[in-house]
Amino acid sequence: MKFGGTSVAGPARIHRAAERAIAAARRGRSVVVVASAPGRMTDDLIALARSVHPEPDERELDLLMSTGEMVGISLLAIAIRARGHPAVSFTGPQAGIEADESHTRAHIVRIRPARIERALRQGAIVIVAGFQGSNPKADIATLGRGGSDLTAVALAASLGATHCEIFTDVRGVFTADPSLVPDARLLGRISCSEMLELASAGAQVMHARSIEVAQRFGVRIRVRSSFEPGPGTWIEEGGGTMEEASISSLALDTGEVRLTVVGVPDKPGTAARVLASLSAAGIPVDMIVQSWAVAGGVNHISLMTPRAHARRAREALAGAAKRLGAERVEVDERVAKVSVVGTGFRHHSWVPTRVFETLARERINIEMIVTSDNRIAVVVALAGARKALRALHAALRLPRRPKAGRPQR
Amino acid sequence: MKFGGTSVAGPARIHRAAERAIAAARRGRSVVVVASAPGRMTDDLIALARSVHPEPDERELDLLMSTGEMVGISLLAIAIRARGHPAVSFTGPQAGIEADESHTRAHIVRIRPARIERALRQGAIVIVAGFQGSNPKADIATLGRGGSDLTAVALAASLGATHCEIFTDVRGVFTADPSLVPDARLLGRISCSEMLELASAGAQVMHARSIEVAQRFGVRIRVRSSFEPGPGTWIEEGGGTMEEASISSLALDTGEVRLTVVGVPDKPGTAARVLASLSAAGIPVDMIVQSWAVAGGVNHISLMTPRAHARRAREALAGAAKRLGAERVEVDERVAKVSVVGTGFRHHSWVPTRVFETLARERINIEMIVTSDNRIAVVVALAGARKALRALHAALRLPRRPKAGRPQR
Repeated sequence: MKFGGTSVAGPARIHRAAERAIAAARRGRSVVVVASAPGRMTDDLIALARSVHPEPDERELDLLMSTGEMVGISLLAIAIRARGHPAVSFTGPQAGIEADESHTRAHIVRIRPARIERALRQGAIVIVAGFQGSNPKADIATLGRGGSDLTAVALAASLGATHCEIFTDVRGVFTADPSLVPDARLLGRISCSEMLELASAGAQVMHARSIEVAQRFGVRIRVRSSFEPGPGTWIEEGGGTMEEASISSLALDTGEVRLTVVGVPDKPGTAARVLASLSAAGIPVDMIVQSWAVAGGVNHISLMTPRAHARRAREALAGAAKRLGAERVEVDERVAKVSVVGTGFRHHSWVPTRVFETLARERINIEMIVTSDNRIAVVVALAGARKALRALHAALRLPRRPKAGRPQR
Repeated sequence: MKFGGTSVAGPARIHRAAERAIAAARRGRSVVVVASAPGRMTDDLIALARSVHPEPDERELDLLMSTGEMVGISLLAIAIRARGHPAVSFTGPQAGIEADESHTRAHIVRIRPARIERALRQGAIVIVAGFQGSNPKADIATLGRGGSDLTAVALAASLGATHCEIFTDVRGVFTADPSLVPDARLLGRISCSEMLELASAGAQVMHARSIEVAQRFGVRIRVRSSFEPGPGTWIEEGGGTMEEASISSLALDTGEVRLTVVGVPDKPGTAARVLASLSAAGIPVDMIVQSWAVAGGVNHISLMTPRAHARRAREALAGAAKRLGAERVEVDERVAKVSVVGTGFRHHSWVPTRVFETLARERINIEMIVTSDNRIAVVVALAGARKALRALHAALRLPRRPKAGRPQR
């Protein structure tokens, strides 16, 4: 069971999380809980470090940030023990979570769960600090964005858990963001591949790296709300439709900008070199599209990148443009990405057809298109993006699709 | 160099501590810094734990409290590195500080300083979290009151340091508390034995346990202000007067109450049994006085104990009184303890004589007296205690005694 920062913010929520863990243990399960730092504590700690120096040393920042999760686990252990149930908290190093040496964005190398297993055998609920591990120097390393989810999924894999429950501030995975599409519906189940597409499409429910680990090790994940009852959403491979196209969810991402290298000479390898300039600078990209300009034998290469990286991406591309003899680099900030995520799109062209027809009927201009078996993504003007999302949600009949949930285990 | 909580409260003070450490390193020294939790963070963390449960589990409370020092050391390391000087922070476990298994008041068992020594050889300033160590279960244990001073003194002993500098919010050890006695003077030097007496007499400068370790391992301590320049006070054995009585300092303790078991039958072993009832309950005592009541062959046994323990001490003594056939237990809350600390009092009776004469002249009634070679302690009514302190400070000529400071090394 993983409890995020909002789920352990304040005594009342800590006690609720404690009750959930004890209830699971009373049903005869061995329970391992992963807790995040309460509330906005991680942000507060980063601000504290920056008040000392704007670019704090990463090793020291890691130690500082890791204290947030230690606060979370000790408070949760206190709450569980206060109810008379044995509980013990472990920091990342104590839990045997071994990370590599890259600070603030370390990867888990392996988990040695002997101490956790011993405590479980003694009947305790084990509470593990998310987002942290011990590196080869015996220093604390944090795991970067989505780190606590990753801790939970990796522990579930390592311990051979039946499943991993992610308690968060949403009720699960919806057919679209309910705050944008009022008749969005909670999904009973979604595959790992679809969930991965959703994550890269901008859905905030879970970070892609945890899903990748779940997929690789066959961990069944259940996303549910800390605050409301309900079955939540199972993320797992298998089941579902065999041959039919299935549409799981829509996502809207307004956090990206479009960059276009205009007038790239049409020679082999130019696209590769454009992209290499970005990957060398560690800039994430999505939706790379090369369009052929009829006149002059030149191409335009467009791509999407997070707003935070826009300035550095523009500089990198400008350098590449100069070297390749391209005309210029254009940046478009007033764009949004709308994605349809599901399976079987390649063989069921009615889905992309329906998407394009719907947007045409709503007079929404499509500026870029990328399709794959799991995703149809379009870039539209920012102003029309919500309208596009709602129209697609209705046209693809997402609200009316029968529930595919499985019974609670 | 040890920096207390007020010395690392906020970016400006953290930078000042960083500058001090770097300045020492630039003078060619290997520098190990021990830092406390910034400001009131430890109290805040305890309050957080109590908001979850009024009596939090001690193992979990230890992990929670230990995060305060981790915040302190990481911020200090960030500040030192920001100035271009190599620095590395170590938690108690990383520093090789091994504690016993008693949580919230653990003792240091040994220090394995290999990692510290390696970092020092590489030219880094090493910053160690005070107040914490790793216990045999690989859990974090905190060292209780005065724990960060203890960490600093124990590290100084373990590393063979030339001396241990305690940076705090006072300028050093004075002949009396300057807020109570305006012409109190800063001492250049005081012996460990005297400092121990001062600590048990209620002086807040340093906790007795650190002084005991310093005495046992011959660590020279220098107490000085984080905020004001000045030589501070050296605490060390040796030097000073050989045969003359020397008076170092006066202390006033208003944090204790007097308990008296009235009418204890005069039989062998009764006093021991009275005291055993308190030590069994872990209650600290000072100034045990047994007075013989002429009529009836009974004794009265009086002692002082901290106000926080008064209720439990009364209960323990009431039980003992009943078993021993004593009359009753009396509690006097309106008392204060005034102590004169120095050396050679046993052979120089002019000191106690001057003390009693002075109080008699000021018409201050002495309710209890205890004398030893290092201390003359009297209990007086709370109302007259400050007057007694000032009169004794003047009568013992403490302000006029020549400075015994040694040159800064």
